[in-house]
Amino acid sequence: MKFNAVLDDLSVYEAGKPIELVVREYGVDPKDVVKLASNENPFGCSPKVSAKVASIVEKMALYPDDSMYELKDGLSKRFNIKQEEVIIGAGSDQIIEFLVHAKLGKNKKVLMNKVTFAMYDIYAKHVAAEIIKTDSMEHDLDQFLSLYKEHKPEVIFICTPNNPTGDALTRKAVYDFLDEIDCETLVVIDGAYMEYTAFADSEKSIEPTDLIKKYPNAIYLGTFSKAYGLGGMRVGYGIGQSDVIRNLYKIRPPFNITTLSLQAAITALEDEEFVTKSIAHNFNEMQRFKTFAKQEKMDIIESFTNFVTLIFDDKRSSKVIAQTLLEKGMIIRDLTGYGLNAIRVTIGTTSDNDAFFERYNKYCK
Amino acid sequence: MKFNAVLDDLSVYEAGKPIELVVREYGVDPKDVVKLASNENPFGCSPKVSAKVASIVEKMALYPDDSMYELKDGLSKRFNIKQEEVIIGAGSDQIIEFLVHAKLGKNKKVLMNKVTFAMYDIYAKHVAAEIIKTDSMEHDLDQFLSLYKEHKPEVIFICTPNNPTGDALTRKAVYDFLDEIDCETLVVIDGAYMEYTAFADSEKSIEPTDLIKKYPNAIYLGTFSKAYGLGGMRVGYGIGQSDVIRNLYKIRPPFNITTLSLQAAITALEDEEFVTKSIAHNFNEMQRFKTFAKQEKMDIIESFTNFVTLIFDDKRSSKVIAQTLLEKGMIIRDLTGYGLNAIRVTIGTTSDNDAFFERYNKYCK
Repeated sequence: MKFNAVLDDLSVYEAGKPIELVVREYGVDPKDVVKLASNENPFGCSPKVSAKVASIVEKMALYPDDSMYELKDGLSKRFNIKQEEVIIGAGSDQIIEFLVHAKLGKNKKVLMNKVTFAMYDIYAKHVAAEIIKTDSMEHDLDQFLSLYKEHKPEVIFICTPNNPTGDALTRKAVYDFLDEIDCETLVVIDGAYMEYTAFADSEKSIEPTDLIKKYPNAIYLGTFSKAYGLGGMRVGYGIGQSDVIRNLYKIRPPFNITTLSLQAAITALEDEEFVTKSIAHNFNEMQRFKTFAKQEKMDIIESFTNFVTLIFDDKRSSKVIAQTLLEKGMIIRDLTGYGLNAIRVTIGTTSDNDAFFERYNKYCK
Repeated sequence: MKFNAVLDDLSVYEAGKPIELVVREYGVDPKDVVKLASNENPFGCSPKVSAKVASIVEKMALYPDDSMYELKDGLSKRFNIKQEEVIIGAGSDQIIEFLVHAKLGKNKKVLMNKVTFAMYDIYAKHVAAEIIKTDSMEHDLDQFLSLYKEHKPEVIFICTPNNPTGDALTRKAVYDFLDEIDCETLVVIDGAYMEYTAFADSEKSIEPTDLIKKYPNAIYLGTFSKAYGLGGMRVGYGIGQSDVIRNLYKIRPPFNITTLSLQAAITALEDEEFVTKSIAHNFNEMQRFKTFAKQEKMDIIESFTNFVTLIFDDKRSSKVIAQTLLEKGMIIRDLTGYGLNAIRVTIGTTSDNDAFFERYNKYCK
């Protein structure tokens, strides 16, 4: 059977390998498997969230409140915005999908960083948009600006802090850039890891409320998957002026998050203390990775997230190292597919990180 | 800001009203609200499923196994198919979205019944496809065939049993129709309520395994939202030959169902007894609706699902009746938007149904 031509250019997203797969394929004892590949919160989610969700499992038969009133109310209060300025997605991924379908298509252009979150490129290919990329690993906003002027793209993706590299832009640099962009171009500020950045460096923190007040053509993406510890529940959000949000709503399928996900996110917003504690622990443990990288003479990118990117010299292959670790039950992310001889390691609990250092020292040196 | 022109034709899907909304808007005591609007299983889900999900809430932080190995294994065994013949969606809705994006687009055609599941039309509009509809309430396959010959659509939707009317086609009629269709046209057999039909009338039962063996251009859609009682968890599936499934996979976003949804569906497949009991109860209670319709001199469509459609004469307005019941805490579905002066009522528990008859008699006569 023939399918649309755009499918010829599409390949399947390679997700981080789940624990079950390592157990299945390499016969590793499940208790020895450590997953530091998907930037999940190593402390799980707030105990208040798990207690709440466990108490409402009998509601699984019922479709969720599709108005998502309570969750939007929580986000409105958290960010001091109106309900009509927020849209909920199955992860912030789905908001990316909505906006790609709302703004892009054949002969329309999108601008993004060379090394950045893979889904921008994938969703743009779904609609046969023309993809323009910078040529540097970190976001070079001067180059962004010159490519913007040359191509006048409909959409620009800025991922700060960036995934999979962890570096972040200053708010001033982003705002200066936005000042140069025409209001017909939608600029996406993907802040999936912004809670970490805001904790580590206030100058790199971007607040959605301030952003959308200044820039009607900006949309901020946030998620419950990282700092809030709900990666498995698929809840993200987009914050923009009501005109932008109203249009994205036209693409949203009904019931796009589950009944339990909705309650999990509502409850997660009520326990900011859990989030702050998780983040403080994260940056304490990050020091150990910096020391490790120095000892091993690897480059480590200054990270404003819950992961570190370790760059190898030519003598070592990230692909081989990732595979070696995988077979020993240590799941991390090889970045060969992003054009880097590097691995991305989620900062885990103290014992997770111990296991990483031990297994690296034992099997990869 | 300008958005793609297709958005001009899109309106937002009107979901069944959730219980929270009725409490909020009409001040009804939550314990008096009865929702018979979304065809959820009134017995909830299997107690084995709720126990299992409650026991793994600490896994909410972890992304699901994106290979969905265990769930596909369960479905493979249930239907005697290969893993590569199945794709999982966030509800069977999402499979509809995938196939629309894989086969349709501007200047491409899709054929569907005049009165049928609303998402076919909505997703087709997302990609600006040309939508061709029959002109009858029930699926008239002769008319389908003549419109097929005239327009040669890329996709045909057959919803059996049909939503929101509940009537079903015989397997023989569907197969005779498929015999006439070219293998380049994808024919979607949406069997969201098929478990009910299979129980009620074996001649109207369509088995995905048999279907796809005979017809390489057919895809069967099934769901955990109805008989399995997991409407809130968003898990559906598509079954087709591996070539079709492989292409739909290219459109699937990673992690498209939640970690808890995945486990809920896996466990649900292990308790078929719960499903059978729910269905047997459903058809017992349906008799009461038939008696009610006869007494009230309403038309009732012979239903092979877990809902009934009651058609009013000109003296009564379904819109007014639905609104009256809503304000009294009885949520049912008005079908005015489908061009029918009718309401759709989910068959609930015995006491739910008592409440429907009582409130109808008290407030709507």
